[in-house]
Amino acid sequence: MKNYKLTISFDGTRYYGWEHQPDQDTVQGRIENVLSRLCEGAPVEVIGAGRTDAGVHARGMVASVKMECSLSGEELRDYMNRYLPDDICVTEAGIASERFHARYNAVGKEYCYTFYIGELKPVFNRKYVTVLEKMPDVRKMREAAEILQGTHDFKAFCTNPNMKKSTVRTVDEIRIVEKKEYLCLYFHGDGFLQNMVRILSGTLLDVGKGKYAPEHCREIMKSLDRTQAGPTLPPQGLCLMRVDY
Amino acid sequence: MKNYKLTISFDGTRYYGWEHQPDQDTVQGRIENVLSRLCEGAPVEVIGAGRTDAGVHARGMVASVKMECSLSGEELRDYMNRYLPDDICVTEAGIASERFHARYNAVGKEYCYTFYIGELKPVFNRKYVTVLEKMPDVRKMREAAEILQGTHDFKAFCTNPNMKKSTVRTVDEIRIVEKKEYLCLYFHGDGFLQNMVRILSGTLLDVGKGKYAPEHCREIMKSLDRTQAGPTLPPQGLCLMRVDY
Repeated sequence: MKNYKLTISFDGTRYYGWEHQPDQDTVQGRIENVLSRLCEGAPVEVIGAGRTDAGVHARGMVASVKMECSLSGEELRDYMNRYLPDDICVTEAGIASERFHARYNAVGKEYCYTFYIGELKPVFNRKYVTVLEKMPDVRKMREAAEILQGTHDFKAFCTNPNMKKSTVRTVDEIRIVEKKEYLCLYFHGDGFLQNMVRILSGTLLDVGKGKYAPEHCREIMKSLDRTQAGPTLPPQGLCLMRVDY
Repeated sequence: MKNYKLTISFDGTRYYGWEHQPDQDTVQGRIENVLSRLCEGAPVEVIGAGRTDAGVHARGMVASVKMECSLSGEELRDYMNRYLPDDICVTEAGIASERFHARYNAVGKEYCYTFYIGELKPVFNRKYVTVLEKMPDVRKMREAAEILQGTHDFKAFCTNPNMKKSTVRTVDEIRIVEKKEYLCLYFHGDGFLQNMVRILSGTLLDVGKGKYAPEHCREIMKSLDRTQAGPTLPPQGLCLMRVDY
């Protein structure tokens, strides 16, 4: 029995998110189908580093999978890429220690939320950005980002919190980068709650549009009330960049 | 009556080319529908600088259209972008002289054929490139490009030549640019025959893969025989970059 570590890029546009769900086309489901074929029909369970919402993309999702399989990492990667659809690619595959678990061993994740700023529709990039007509006030967004960074109870920035589980997380960095007509918000942290990056991005955007002052983010955080934070931005601007172990 | 000049970007993936065709979804058809709506249902004829094949993209297609319309160029652009689908964008619209004709007045066009070179599938760019596993011999391709440049009878590089029309064209520049994992072939000329850029690209690629020497392109040209040239490469790597007037 080998335990493989897979790094995966996918265009989430047509998927109902990462996680396997009955009667839905999901990235995990596609990957499990290919691996099950390799294992002559035996069911295969792929463990992802986390879930991604429907329509969210990934450049560095990590998954682990235990299989009776003679292939080397590189051979497995090539096999999978031969049978996976064009919008899912295994960028790396290697043999990990028996105890490696893609979800439990993840110590950090980086997400990027990308805005395209312009009056014209970005024809060739339209599925990977959220369009803004005007550049928001980046200086104010950076002030708000400093307030949101750190170890906090992020309950106000979460859809459907599980009442039994902690909503405290550490976001050690929110970095805002302007690249020509793009504005990229990078979030690095130990873990993220459901929709958390999209809600944090929506809140930062509210600040950038002048709806409220950066300092108001402190009140939102304290309120623990989802209705106080900004909107959940659309999924297509979001991408899981990296998982740290 | 105003004569508008439109510059248009489109992702050709889901269209049956530029030109209006019955029962097919085409870019011209989509544009005419939006303009016809603006003109309260009156039919509108849009003249494109040229045809593009099914699946080919454009960043700078130009079209002209005569309409009874009170809108300024900018207003027309904004109106069209409101109603066109996400994969078609009018990047510029202006009022041209009455005699401007997007097809007859075009004096040059630039196309780009883009290869992605790598073992891994380019997930986010997959619809705009043709994938090669290995970098071809670019030096040899440049030698072949020098031979193909100029004023020639390009009949060997044309699908279904119209026997009544000349197949002589001037390609004044074929420029080959390496950009990280991409290889871009830029073609500038006074006009291009059906599939000509895709066949020229296929021939240059044959040279780059060592199937024949650069000098052999002279024989292919002289043969006037389509079967002597390289393959017609897939449409998704091709993009109309610019039309000159």
